[in-house]
Amino acid sequence: MTRRTPDQLRVLMTQMLQASGTPSDLAAFVGASLVDANLTGHDSHGVIRILAYLAQVRSGALDPVARAEVVNESGATILIDGRWGWGQPAMHLATTEAIRLAREFGLGLATVERCYHIGRVAPYVEQVAAAKMVGIAMANAGAAVAPFGARSRVMGTNPFAWSVPRADGHEPVTLDVATAFIAEGKLRVARAKGLPAPPGAVVNADGLPSDDPNDFYNGGALMAFGAHKGSGMSLFAQLMGRGLAGQTPEQLAGHGGGNGPVIIAIDPERLRPLTDFLGAVEDQVDAVHAAMPAEGISEVLLPGEPEIAERARRERDGIEVADPIWESLVAEAAVWGVVVG
Amino acid sequence: MTRRTPDQLRVLMTQMLQASGTPSDLAAFVGASLVDANLTGHDSHGVIRILAYLAQVRSGALDPVARAEVVNESGATILIDGRWGWGQPAMHLATTEAIRLAREFGLGLATVERCYHIGRVAPYVEQVAAAKMVGIAMANAGAAVAPFGARSRVMGTNPFAWSVPRADGHEPVTLDVATAFIAEGKLRVARAKGLPAPPGAVVNADGLPSDDPNDFYNGGALMAFGAHKGSGMSLFAQLMGRGLAGQTPEQLAGHGGGNGPVIIAIDPERLRPLTDFLGAVEDQVDAVHAAMPAEGISEVLLPGEPEIAERARRERDGIEVADPIWESLVAEAAVWGVVVG
Repeated sequence: MTRRTPDQLRVLMTQMLQASGTPSDLAAFVGASLVDANLTGHDSHGVIRILAYLAQVRSGALDPVARAEVVNESGATILIDGRWGWGQPAMHLATTEAIRLAREFGLGLATVERCYHIGRVAPYVEQVAAAKMVGIAMANAGAAVAPFGARSRVMGTNPFAWSVPRADGHEPVTLDVATAFIAEGKLRVARAKGLPAPPGAVVNADGLPSDDPNDFYNGGALMAFGAHKGSGMSLFAQLMGRGLAGQTPEQLAGHGGGNGPVIIAIDPERLRPLTDFLGAVEDQVDAVHAAMPAEGISEVLLPGEPEIAERARRERDGIEVADPIWESLVAEAAVWGVVVG
Repeated sequence: MTRRTPDQLRVLMTQMLQASGTPSDLAAFVGASLVDANLTGHDSHGVIRILAYLAQVRSGALDPVARAEVVNESGATILIDGRWGWGQPAMHLATTEAIRLAREFGLGLATVERCYHIGRVAPYVEQVAAAKMVGIAMANAGAAVAPFGARSRVMGTNPFAWSVPRADGHEPVTLDVATAFIAEGKLRVARAKGLPAPPGAVVNADGLPSDDPNDFYNGGALMAFGAHKGSGMSLFAQLMGRGLAGQTPEQLAGHGGGNGPVIIAIDPERLRPLTDFLGAVEDQVDAVHAAMPAEGISEVLLPGEPEIAERARRERDGIEVADPIWESLVAEAAVWGVVVG
């Protein structure tokens, strides 16, 4: 393991992105987004992704200088064109616009066409929650997941996320999950470590259950979480990303890692005094924390609390990167003329 | 089994509701809603519910003459007061208003406070889809489900539903699921039939897994579907119903079967030509239908297709009601002076 401070990794990511032709402000934003994923414990969405990102720059599928722009604003909805530039700043713009529309109309919806990978979804819905609004987001992605009752790829791993603000002084309650049984990035990590896939996560090219992560990459498929219910959530993200963001499976296949995201912001203050809404949330937070823990569980946690704890640990202790990944990062940096200190 | 036509059951329900003091238009609406649930195969939400409904009328918790009314409209949001009258017409009003707001603003949100049981959620999101818009709905309910990692009741069985319109001539794609591993109504049916609960659905009062449906009713809890992911969806419905609809667990406990619903309508035409959106949906529908079926599955179905098929069957063959339930209905009808033909 190689251990680095968050700042060291942010500097490295930013340098590599700038060397690839990314303007400095976008490079800093995307770099910080990747390191933020590591901080929350989701290494599958962290600095390892720069390798795939820069491969897309090299192939020309990702334009590092393109800036997202508004295509159309209509009522409380807005369509952004990501122009196949960096997905994180495009989705940040979409989120900022959804919040502005929700301020004006009580709710707002933004979607991004021609959108490259947006990274973890939690930061966007948390941006909504920081404005004391409720955020909901979902996205489609390249075909990887079989619908319920099937064994071949139709949907993406399609993240679904929400964030609800809490009273001042508390981080929001945030759920951010793949609607696949496991995220493809987590399967990739298992494969790299030689670990099996969890039971029920993968089928091979013949449609038979498998615990070998390689079977997914050799023409198999992932299953959705939660049988027909999770498959239904995945299909909803698929229909929204395909229909509203306009991201076809073919487009996404041509931009490895692309997403079709939709984000909705809701201003609870239009319906209730904000203090009443926040008080209701605290009631429920207290009820979750007071619930009887299951066997072997010391503390019942809210969605997002494991990430809050992990962030505190890694801010303090630094971020560990597995040696093979670190070596790949150093080698890729060298390609772009960046020397790793 | 007793077999009746849908019309016969609608007449019976309407007569019983009118005899309890419900105005004829509301009685017809609620009665048709219950029979509609039977038609789709969801007997747990069908005519059996009239027994609990009329018990609430008798106790005074449900006011059969109250009509839902608008409390506050602000931008694209609207708050309805259900006045602890019938939930179905209240939620129908909320849905109609959400569609109207979405027509005006591109999206609209409605919620109902003091709302009795709304029945199956699918008909409301399908009402949105019939307007060629996307519907999303969720609701909280009386505490029954343990959060992930816990073994005592915090959330309701909290339904989550969505519906997406298809091209003319096709019914919409609709998901309507309890975020509990199984709906409480389905557990009630299992108990009545002496069948076990599915593995992973129930814990007893000591927090231990159980397949005895009675253990839930004796102080146990239901589990959420899909581990932490499904639990997170349940908590979201809980926070929305508690925070926006204003439905506290105490209020819901005092109105057995009450709900705190939120519905969102999205007009896709603000973002894309409607034909493009509907074409994208058809693409994905075709992809689901063309997927390789799993072992033992003859046909891969969309969410909602099993209900469409069951409706056609029951419209043709009639609706079967288990004898003990039928006898209870006849006895309850007699209490209200309704003679069953």
